[in-house]
Amino acid sequence: MQGTITVDQIRDWVAARDRACIVEGFERAHPGTVAEAVADLEPDEILTALSFVRIPVRAEIFGHLDDRLQVEIARRMPRDDLAPLIAELPPDERVDLLKRMPDEEREAILPAIAQAEREDIRRLAAYPEGTAGAAMTSEYARISPDLTASEAIHTLRREAPNKETIYYAYVVDRARRLLGFVSLKDLILALPETRVELLMHRDVISVRVDETQEEAAQKIQKYDFIALPVVDANDVLVGIITYDDALDILNEEFTEDIEKLMAITGGHEGGVYLRSSVWEHFRHRSGWVLALALLGLVSGFIVHRFEGLLLQFSILATFMPMLVDTGGNTGSQSATLVVRALALREVVPRDAARILFKELQISLLLGALLAGIAFGRVYLFGDSGLPPGVPLAMVGVAVATALAIQVVFSTLIGACLPLFAAKLRIDPAVVASPALTTIVDITGLMIFFTTAKLILGL
Amino acid sequence: MQGTITVDQIRDWVAARDRACIVEGFERAHPGTVAEAVADLEPDEILTALSFVRIPVRAEIFGHLDDRLQVEIARRMPRDDLAPLIAELPPDERVDLLKRMPDEEREAILPAIAQAEREDIRRLAAYPEGTAGAAMTSEYARISPDLTASEAIHTLRREAPNKETIYYAYVVDRARRLLGFVSLKDLILALPETRVELLMHRDVISVRVDETQEEAAQKIQKYDFIALPVVDANDVLVGIITYDDALDILNEEFTEDIEKLMAITGGHEGGVYLRSSVWEHFRHRSGWVLALALLGLVSGFIVHRFEGLLLQFSILATFMPMLVDTGGNTGSQSATLVVRALALREVVPRDAARILFKELQISLLLGALLAGIAFGRVYLFGDSGLPPGVPLAMVGVAVATALAIQVVFSTLIGACLPLFAAKLRIDPAVVASPALTTIVDITGLMIFFTTAKLILGL
Repeated sequence: MQGTITVDQIRDWVAARDRACIVEGFERAHPGTVAEAVADLEPDEILTALSFVRIPVRAEIFGHLDDRLQVEIARRMPRDDLAPLIAELPPDERVDLLKRMPDEEREAILPAIAQAEREDIRRLAAYPEGTAGAAMTSEYARISPDLTASEAIHTLRREAPNKETIYYAYVVDRARRLLGFVSLKDLILALPETRVELLMHRDVISVRVDETQEEAAQKIQKYDFIALPVVDANDVLVGIITYDDALDILNEEFTEDIEKLMAITGGHEGGVYLRSSVWEHFRHRSGWVLALALLGLVSGFIVHRFEGLLLQFSILATFMPMLVDTGGNTGSQSATLVVRALALREVVPRDAARILFKELQISLLLGALLAGIAFGRVYLFGDSGLPPGVPLAMVGVAVATALAIQVVFSTLIGACLPLFAAKLRIDPAVVASPALTTIVDITGLMIFFTTAKLILGL
Repeated sequence: MQGTITVDQIRDWVAARDRACIVEGFERAHPGTVAEAVADLEPDEILTALSFVRIPVRAEIFGHLDDRLQVEIARRMPRDDLAPLIAELPPDERVDLLKRMPDEEREAILPAIAQAEREDIRRLAAYPEGTAGAAMTSEYARISPDLTASEAIHTLRREAPNKETIYYAYVVDRARRLLGFVSLKDLILALPETRVELLMHRDVISVRVDETQEEAAQKIQKYDFIALPVVDANDVLVGIITYDDALDILNEEFTEDIEKLMAITGGHEGGVYLRSSVWEHFRHRSGWVLALALLGLVSGFIVHRFEGLLLQFSILATFMPMLVDTGGNTGSQSATLVVRALALREVVPRDAARILFKELQISLLLGALLAGIAFGRVYLFGDSGLPPGVPLAMVGVAVATALAIQVVFSTLIGACLPLFAAKLRIDPAVVASPALTTIVDITGLMIFFTTAKLILGL
């Protein structure tokens, strides 16, 4: 039932230069399906296959390729083919592609693009990466409040081929200030002669051009919009962001968040794990690993400082790895929950007191549980590595207390760091879990040795 | 410009029982905005506020509340108010709410709901949680292929108030088998007398009722659909999933993935961090922390076994924390990237060889870098804790080699585990980063001590 097309079919067609099969196959299947299939071909094969189909179909398929492959194909395409393809892409995708191309190639292609589109590209390209302005498209339907419903439908029908969506039409005044919007559903349900002014929703939810694309995507999710209008500081409508962009933005942001939590740096687009070179992976991953290893050497100095204690009570060395890991785990849990709650706007930095109080209670429970287990372990099996005259129960109390303090402490650090980052308007996810782990390792060892010394009265 | 409404306003209106203000305020603002504002009120206040507005508005606002609050409010609502509210909710939300209510309350309310809706509820509730069937709605527009474009528009217009979306209409035969779909845009652009049969897209991409909701959401994202049809094994259309459900599904799945990566268990809905009790947080977080702490005791036994070596070369103890952390960090990085690439369908388990070869190369680079640093650290500052006659360079080589092996080993384990989980059709994210960290800690200590013994010739 579904219009399937396989990479092997396409490869055969390309090898045989079978124009008819390519044209039929590519036009029949969804451009997303074709893009997925051709992605496994060599760039030159893709180029050949695309050259056979009409430019609108070509642009649709091209638009579904991942960003990196788009650049690769675009750079190999003859300039006479590339200019019309770029002109056919939706404005937001067009700008993304040009931004990713090397400077000299971009400059070479721009003069071949029509004046109006060139200006649109310049305007959209001016917004910083990651803002609503950079994510929006300029192809939206705009109508005047004086139209009747049937005139509005007529306008939408006429403009449909050039608009990203005609399901929402934005109502603007002469200065292009946003007054409201009507959905195509509203227009269809209305009496034909009703004026748009009376139909339109006036309390429009919009996003400012300099807000983040993530904020825009969250508004779309929260209000179930098909499109969200983007306005400038004077409330002038400058573009829209559609629901499909919101899906892509959320996916991209999530990948970024999770990679930050795992201490991987660099910009991240979908579809690139296998296509990124070993060297690129190394660059994105080595920075934090290196920094954390250097920081990890600090734990070494702490262990070194307490060498005497360890030689005397070698049983303490046995608990070091468990103590260090447990602190890292509980800290990562609270950090993750707070990062996620901040990302979903469930909490804001000024909820800090409520969050910390909650985490304090949770960590006291966790600490008590783990302390009980650690005490049991020492008391039942820990009968070696002790100097004579020290009661085993005492050592058990020392280890248990140290572990409980470590759990409470690292849970609170884990919750504090992202709140603090958010307060400073840094992305809370940069308080990466590995960074946190290394920090609580260091504090944990200090807590461990100090508590042991105090309780054992050394 | 935006229709704002604050929690303080609403609280005052409720206290003053100011029906007029509530009605005007609630009808003017977007239901999502109202829901966000009332969420901070006491359930009884919300109940009072909602009781003033018309049922359709009430249902819209109610539908934007988070799941937990919906149940709380529904349980306090008089049965005569609850039944019409439930009838007004979209079918998928209605079923979700009823599923979450205690059995006896659900059984009490069902008889008050009309027969047709009750059957619809039974049917939808039969699909297991997490499937496309459980996420779909039964309110979609269905047309016959014999209609003309203008008749189809007329049908959509008539049915609009009861359908989740009228922007896509699904074309079915007499047995309700899915033949194709037309968008409202297609219908509007067509000549009025063109038959739907000629207009419809035949290569419909659909999802089977027993596929996961995540697969459905990914199709919506990939193909930029406003809605995706859900069919049963006989290709009979049974429902649709809309783009706004896809946004919610992706967000929910992200949260679940990230919490699994951080070893937090339990089902997760948005909006609940602050509303979950300390005890619930404890239950979701203690399981893994406890299991991993017990596993961490194994590292203790390893340290215990090599106590003699540590007493002789106390310098080795200094490097233990750094070695253990670095292994955890590099392993988490590769695990995260593979989990994410699997989730985004960039790779499948049979790409294992390519992935492992890539990770091997990356880890060799990382290992070499870190080994160099470790050697430098030992050689430059490590002049204590050595028995006489052992050259410092030798210790440096031992530490550096052990670290390099640990990095390569843990990177490969990190990449293997999720691939293996995916192969077994377990969610790769359950190979939680803390679990991985604990495993590579244990293997890392073994590697460390064994390598040191071999190189130092003990």
